[in-house]
Amino acid sequence: MRTLQQIETIEALREQIRAARRQGKRIGFVPTMGYLHEGHLSLVEEAKKRTDFVVMSIFVNPLQFGPSEDYERYPRDLERDSRLAAEAGVDLLFTPSVAEMYPTQVKTTVSVSGVSEPLCGRSRPGHFDGVATVVMKLFQIVQPDEAFFGQKDAQQVAVVEQMVRDLSVPVTIIPCPIVREADGVAMSSRNVYLSPEERKQAAVLYRSLQMAKELLAQDKAPAQVRSEMMRLIEAEPLAQIDYIEILNYPDLTPVEAAGTGQQILVALAVRFGATRLIDNMILTR
Amino acid sequence: MRTLQQIETIEALREQIRAARRQGKRIGFVPTMGYLHEGHLSLVEEAKKRTDFVVMSIFVNPLQFGPSEDYERYPRDLERDSRLAAEAGVDLLFTPSVAEMYPTQVKTTVSVSGVSEPLCGRSRPGHFDGVATVVMKLFQIVQPDEAFFGQKDAQQVAVVEQMVRDLSVPVTIIPCPIVREADGVAMSSRNVYLSPEERKQAAVLYRSLQMAKELLAQDKAPAQVRSEMMRLIEAEPLAQIDYIEILNYPDLTPVEAAGTGQQILVALAVRFGATRLIDNMILTR
Repeated sequence: MRTLQQIETIEALREQIRAARRQGKRIGFVPTMGYLHEGHLSLVEEAKKRTDFVVMSIFVNPLQFGPSEDYERYPRDLERDSRLAAEAGVDLLFTPSVAEMYPTQVKTTVSVSGVSEPLCGRSRPGHFDGVATVVMKLFQIVQPDEAFFGQKDAQQVAVVEQMVRDLSVPVTIIPCPIVREADGVAMSSRNVYLSPEERKQAAVLYRSLQMAKELLAQDKAPAQVRSEMMRLIEAEPLAQIDYIEILNYPDLTPVEAAGTGQQILVALAVRFGATRLIDNMILTR
Repeated sequence: MRTLQQIETIEALREQIRAARRQGKRIGFVPTMGYLHEGHLSLVEEAKKRTDFVVMSIFVNPLQFGPSEDYERYPRDLERDSRLAAEAGVDLLFTPSVAEMYPTQVKTTVSVSGVSEPLCGRSRPGHFDGVATVVMKLFQIVQPDEAFFGQKDAQQVAVVEQMVRDLSVPVTIIPCPIVREADGVAMSSRNVYLSPEERKQAAVLYRSLQMAKELLAQDKAPAQVRSEMMRLIEAEPLAQIDYIEILNYPDLTPVEAAGTGQQILVALAVRFGATRLIDNMILTR
């Protein structure tokens, strides 16, 4: 197992990154909120293929949680994360405290209109401002050549890509495929919240996406596909639908009934008790 | 006279800056809207003292002008600017078009609450969002070590400093003193709008600031100082006061009647016809 440097301050991180740069290394960056699973590790794997020095951050960012959301109870296990990151070949693990990231009240907000508005933007007001702001700050700290994001958070990818384009941020965004459990449930740190019965029923999310794929391939209208998905998910007694949407990708505008060749995003958020799960599939019509 | 490279595209600029970096040069950056005067040139002079490779941008940024403001008629003279920049020793002049900076509708906004709200923030809604957004973008493009701003736009300096601190932008902000004409009028590209009579009366702005300095040194209350300034300025028949404020610096919060040792900003905006001039003085009480 290789040595993993764990660093808690911005200044110390910058020093290590300058040293890596002086050796001509290209920097890959995997921002996470920790409680690592195979989804995160697949990002590291991709980062190792494409860059020479992989920085992972673990920071549960309070700015991106609403007042009634799960910031306090969000799962944390730094010891385990550190071991997994080392095994995956992360070169530098950045684990700042909230006081290190936000020593005074943050007055600066990065907002992305348009792509941040539907889907989770509607269910979680302010969420994507918090995401854009912390990602921008992390990019300024790490100054990576490439940054790796899971496609499970498809809207987050769209927001970050829009921000990077608009502000000419010199970072290439690499979206990576969703990693799933054997029954199709998308890997998520929040899966740990689920009771055994909720966990079992959660498999309906992926089944509904597969069904959507088939129906859209048969040229069914998006509105009809959406109703069929709703019916399938509502058949699981513990599932409560937050949203199901079929949108153009990556601009996340309403999809026209007709139209071929364009990319579309089928996205959903479903609650099981207090736990909110999201999943999606990007398809070409 | 040295050779001045003039560059219009982001990609070409980045290439030149990479080349300078490879030679171990530290990058100084002077962002401007052009129509250069001695104030701008004093920024270049400071940049040349402190860094090895000076980039100046000239970009009249539409985002920071309100719909009824002077974006269209803002003075432009690239040929003259280019000559002055070369004479001052600028190494690289970046003159992007609006289409180069904003090829599609910009969806991303950088906002700074608090310091952007009083003074010009109140008179020019959205102005500092436009400033913060374009400065952030220019910083991403140029990636300077140090950036130089005139203290005439004291609130702009405060906004940029807050943004840089909050988002950990790896740029040192160097505020530079106001440069004045013989009669005390602060150098400004907008002075060219003034009629001879307006230009003459505009000298009252600096006189009012000097008076404020004296009165505050005599421990006069800020509210009284403000009234005296108002009276002095209103004595000029063409002057129309937009605001006169005395605030703590750099947080721009209301100043208490009592209090010593802290920095305060005396700031004003005054219209002469369609031309709006600003000026200020930073004092220690």
